[in-house]
Amino acid sequence: MKKLINNPENAVNEMLEGFVKAYPQYVKRLEDLNVIVRSNPKTGKVALVSGGGSGHEPAHAGYVGEGMLDAAVAGEVFTSPTPDQVYEAIKAVDNGKGVLLIIKNYTGDIMNFEMASDMAKDEGIEVEQVVVNDDVAVEDSTYTTGRRGIAGTIFVHKIAGAKAEMGGSLQEVKNVAEKVIKNVKSMGMALTSCTLPAVGKPSFTLGDNEMEIGIGIHGEPGTHRDEIKPADEIVDELLNKIFDNLKLDSGDEVAVMVNGMGATPLMELNIANSRINDVIVNKGIKIVRTYIGNYMTSLDMAGFSITLLKLDDELKELLLYKSNTPALVQF
Amino acid sequence: MKKLINNPENAVNEMLEGFVKAYPQYVKRLEDLNVIVRSNPKTGKVALVSGGGSGHEPAHAGYVGEGMLDAAVAGEVFTSPTPDQVYEAIKAVDNGKGVLLIIKNYTGDIMNFEMASDMAKDEGIEVEQVVVNDDVAVEDSTYTTGRRGIAGTIFVHKIAGAKAEMGGSLQEVKNVAEKVIKNVKSMGMALTSCTLPAVGKPSFTLGDNEMEIGIGIHGEPGTHRDEIKPADEIVDELLNKIFDNLKLDSGDEVAVMVNGMGATPLMELNIANSRINDVIVNKGIKIVRTYIGNYMTSLDMAGFSITLLKLDDELKELLLYKSNTPALVQF
Repeated sequence: MKKLINNPENAVNEMLEGFVKAYPQYVKRLEDLNVIVRSNPKTGKVALVSGGGSGHEPAHAGYVGEGMLDAAVAGEVFTSPTPDQVYEAIKAVDNGKGVLLIIKNYTGDIMNFEMASDMAKDEGIEVEQVVVNDDVAVEDSTYTTGRRGIAGTIFVHKIAGAKAEMGGSLQEVKNVAEKVIKNVKSMGMALTSCTLPAVGKPSFTLGDNEMEIGIGIHGEPGTHRDEIKPADEIVDELLNKIFDNLKLDSGDEVAVMVNGMGATPLMELNIANSRINDVIVNKGIKIVRTYIGNYMTSLDMAGFSITLLKLDDELKELLLYKSNTPALVQF
Repeated sequence: MKKLINNPENAVNEMLEGFVKAYPQYVKRLEDLNVIVRSNPKTGKVALVSGGGSGHEPAHAGYVGEGMLDAAVAGEVFTSPTPDQVYEAIKAVDNGKGVLLIIKNYTGDIMNFEMASDMAKDEGIEVEQVVVNDDVAVEDSTYTTGRRGIAGTIFVHKIAGAKAEMGGSLQEVKNVAEKVIKNVKSMGMALTSCTLPAVGKPSFTLGDNEMEIGIGIHGEPGTHRDEIKPADEIVDELLNKIFDNLKLDSGDEVAVMVNGMGATPLMELNIANSRINDVIVNKGIKIVRTYIGNYMTSLDMAGFSITLLKLDDELKELLLYKSNTPALVQF
């Protein structure tokens, strides 16, 4: 294992420390908790809480800030955050307008977020939740019943976050989050495995000339392994599966995310985007905005995912609404 | 070699295509050239041109936009752009106020940028240049006489770019760029080699438990190889060498960049930053802004560099001036 870490057992804690030290203008950490909240919280609005296992940085703490999340809860690497941590996050950010939980579809995440939700409701806090399941690769998986939640989750953060910032009610924010979830589909692939700090060896093995199509963000199996192909062929394969699951006609508008898994050079993501753009434009579909970068990673995995979000006027306006978070970008 | 590419010979071209397709709101490509310019150029200002070999993405094309560069010229991977390409960039962005070339200190880059400069001057264009040499690791190197230019270059783009955007004259913009260069120092390390697409095997080999301290962004040798140590010890070693070369006293202000080499997970950069921040703060030095991410990469190398920029009031104001480019970030 070659990692820039100190003690694997303390990696998540040190990561969160390094993160809040870097961005005091955006975020702070709740004392003795793995919960990141805005350093200058906005009140009088619905609060958004997301989170999950660590190892997917900048998800989710990087999206805490103006126009996106109010809190992010970090579990250990690839491990759901505990209910009490999520509960503390809910309590910290609720300001009387209710709290929306944005959960990626993993069995452990759903269980723990729902327990936290029940605890908060017992205290009189209004809590709703949405579950993101954008990964079209497989129906069930190692840690999931139904489809997995992956990079499309960032579009839910962004659009529901904008709706909340604009003053939407809890039900309105939930409704628009559900609309994003219905219209966002993703699929990924890996060239290499990832290695958990505390394990020290790759989670799985791929041959020197092998890739895995439909991989999950924890290295869960995809649809199949194959010989490595040219980037254009890989793009076509992923896009075809997405098109099978997201009805798009000439004249429709989409947002595109080309997401690196953590160890993929930007050069390669740009090369992939050249083909992605061509295929979509050739179908007469209009690309409103493209996002290329590491948005939802899988530790040190090399590979990428493609996400398409079908837009209508409401989603487009919210997508382009101002946000300002430490994670990056031209959102 | 496991890379998401099509034909290695066409990798730079396809990367630039994918890049401009993603960000038409920011950039366009000059026809038949590897030159990226702003899609909505601002006139009546000094124009800034940078560039160099490809493989360092988002440098430099990602920094073309409001408040930073006017043009970036991309050579083949790790290869200086040709003089005629640089010359075309200069001609395209000059609008009568003169052009500043920002060159990283590599022998080939300097030669080719200077040839381009001479060609442009022959046409009556006013051209000045600065050479960035922020890497404190070694005095001379494989491709360099003197110190290499690495991630500190982004601070030159940012601050000189702000000065130009605010209406500074060519001499004023050059002067502030020189001031940044005098006050910015960097040092990096690698856990793994990088692999050039057209070569297909790693540029050098590191043992399973080995790292290289002082590495360059083309995999040029550093100061020494060593057994991998905990992140905190590595940070201390890099920072000590930087402090040897940049006089900082209690009460001074700095900007910090924690730069990933391309394949380094954000988790690890955050862990490194926790220590970086502690060491600097414990010296009584104030951190004005921290930047963590992939700013100046080396293809698929795992590793990172630390950059410190000593600030005065002028540099601080310009650092925090508004910019908007495709590369990212909270600049």
